[in-house]
Amino acid sequence: MGLSRTMTDPRYTPLALSLPATVPFVGPETQERQRGAPFVARLGANESIFGPSPRAVEAMAATDIWKYGDPESHDLRHELADYHGVKPENIVVGEGIDGLLGYLVRLLVGPDDTVVTSDGAYPTFNYHVTGFGGVLHKVPYRGDHEDPEALFSKAAEVDAKLVYLANPDNPMGSWHSGANIVAALEALPARCLLVLDEAYVECAPKGTAAPVSADDPRVIRMRTFSKVYGMAGARVGYGIGAPGLIEVFNKVRNHFGMNRAAQAGALVALQDTDWLSQVQSLIAAARDRLSQIARDNGLEPLPSAANFVAIDCGRDGEFAKAVLEAMVAQGIFVRMPFAAPQNRCIRVSCGTAADLDAFANALPKALAKAKATI
Amino acid sequence: MGLSRTMTDPRYTPLALSLPATVPFVGPETQERQRGAPFVARLGANESIFGPSPRAVEAMAATDIWKYGDPESHDLRHELADYHGVKPENIVVGEGIDGLLGYLVRLLVGPDDTVVTSDGAYPTFNYHVTGFGGVLHKVPYRGDHEDPEALFSKAAEVDAKLVYLANPDNPMGSWHSGANIVAALEALPARCLLVLDEAYVECAPKGTAAPVSADDPRVIRMRTFSKVYGMAGARVGYGIGAPGLIEVFNKVRNHFGMNRAAQAGALVALQDTDWLSQVQSLIAAARDRLSQIARDNGLEPLPSAANFVAIDCGRDGEFAKAVLEAMVAQGIFVRMPFAAPQNRCIRVSCGTAADLDAFANALPKALAKAKATI
Repeated sequence: MGLSRTMTDPRYTPLALSLPATVPFVGPETQERQRGAPFVARLGANESIFGPSPRAVEAMAATDIWKYGDPESHDLRHELADYHGVKPENIVVGEGIDGLLGYLVRLLVGPDDTVVTSDGAYPTFNYHVTGFGGVLHKVPYRGDHEDPEALFSKAAEVDAKLVYLANPDNPMGSWHSGANIVAALEALPARCLLVLDEAYVECAPKGTAAPVSADDPRVIRMRTFSKVYGMAGARVGYGIGAPGLIEVFNKVRNHFGMNRAAQAGALVALQDTDWLSQVQSLIAAARDRLSQIARDNGLEPLPSAANFVAIDCGRDGEFAKAVLEAMVAQGIFVRMPFAAPQNRCIRVSCGTAADLDAFANALPKALAKAKATI
Repeated sequence: MGLSRTMTDPRYTPLALSLPATVPFVGPETQERQRGAPFVARLGANESIFGPSPRAVEAMAATDIWKYGDPESHDLRHELADYHGVKPENIVVGEGIDGLLGYLVRLLVGPDDTVVTSDGAYPTFNYHVTGFGGVLHKVPYRGDHEDPEALFSKAAEVDAKLVYLANPDNPMGSWHSGANIVAALEALPARCLLVLDEAYVECAPKGTAAPVSADDPRVIRMRTFSKVYGMAGARVGYGIGAPGLIEVFNKVRNHFGMNRAAQAGALVALQDTDWLSQVQSLIAAARDRLSQIARDNGLEPLPSAANFVAIDCGRDGEFAKAVLEAMVAQGIFVRMPFAAPQNRCIRVSCGTAADLDAFANALPKALAKAKATI
């Protein structure tokens, strides 16, 4: 951005001055403003178009929004603890996983501290690491799967304080069994914390959630109400971890940062297991339909344990980007992985029948256009 | 908190390890859980019990909460820019002023950097400064007013990067004319940024808002929807400042941190000027009533330009604390200033007639109890 350090500018920290002006993601609204029209189908942000539990919507509407939220998120934390069979002291609630990742990185990572992640994994995590001066080391995917062994081996090699692993993975939708994650933990270096992002685990096969003890000091698991619970706009995430670690968040978090309606809505959403089951079914059906649409167009859908499907466009990243741009030009918001060779895919979120009809209609045209230009 | 640095603990940064476990405020819900009963009147957090614009409530309920909020808060920023007659590039929207203060401090303050505030001013600002390793220098109030001249003189003395001033002041309710703030700016040291917290300015006399140019690089003004707009639980604050400074927030802020319903609600709340006028009248009337109740009990209410009244209990901090505790014991949530001699007061938020009836009923008993024990 080229800050001019004139005699009137505030005196930013050296770290702030060194930071790039990049943002983790361009939002769909920005793209809509740029193209001058709303999207026909919003299938790019892995939101849950099926929406939240109607009971959660009611609870949010019934909230006295003139009151600050409870800074302890007491009721929600206790409900989450009951749900998971852990202690409230194992739970930290925050402004989405994004907010919690920011706090976690702040607590652990200072200038030149090392962190390990996968090449092409969650950009917002990387944004936080860079933002606190950390140095990222990246390992490649292994066959479109994140590679715990390689991550932990790299962590040992570079003496990482923190390692990031998403299971199920975003953007590929691939997954490991929870048992395999736990087995891999044996190779996690001492005093290297694993942040295990399980944002999509509620739509994964049974056994995907890692059976890690909540008191295990080696791991903090991240969960969210933004995906299967359909409350991305509410900003509620939580971490499950050892009480000593959970307590340390209190040193830096924005205590009054939680939206009060969001707290109330998340609590009720957690209780509405019927709605969760319905959405899980809808996601499974939409994944099947998306996969079929891909095959109908001669493309290969990747198996997915998340609420989206990565579709292999069959050529390189340049070609997939052309497909993506041709989809966006037709009003279909989708995204794609950032790193090769995963960027041969486009990533399509589950949606309603109408959304997927629109996707099915646009895809052959986008492919034709991409083939004509690349 | 006494972290044990065993061989299993994560490796926190030296700064994180050094931080105290203190929180800026204990929330009213925590106090309710401790006393085993809800408060009869919630008059301690300077929330607006009159609530938000009904149109804002409708807008929040109508929001597709399954969608992430617009990371640019484009529509709200543009509406705010129009409202203030500035450019959208002068506006940063964030998760309450608390969230924005955290980002601002992060951008400017590193270990041992100096910051100036008033003794007894906003604890959450202090929390952020300490949280990033800054060193706070405090100047006393002057006759229950914040003292811009003393603040800026101290800033020059200690080479502060940042100075905090609230106008109207919290917790005292006192205020300076905006013209006087601008005049005092002449003494602000070069490249020391003033964060001017105008959270309560919508219920202050005309002329209290400082007529600072939005492009003035010396000042960032903070505003909120948590006070007069009645949306504390929604978490919407904004800063008005020079585009160069506003842009730098993009390097560290949680881009997808805003609640989508809150964005929509704030936009409509800003448009509903009739509701704002009504609430301003209700606040003025409640201030008068609170002042009268104080006088009826032989206490001195301080003049207030905010949505609360500081009531001088006539003795020292110990006595005021006894009054406060006796109020809380009767189910009346109030707070008090932190530093002497301002802590001779209790601070009471404006409320409905029923709230103030409950306050009027409890106050004489609390005074009697305090007099009997101190």
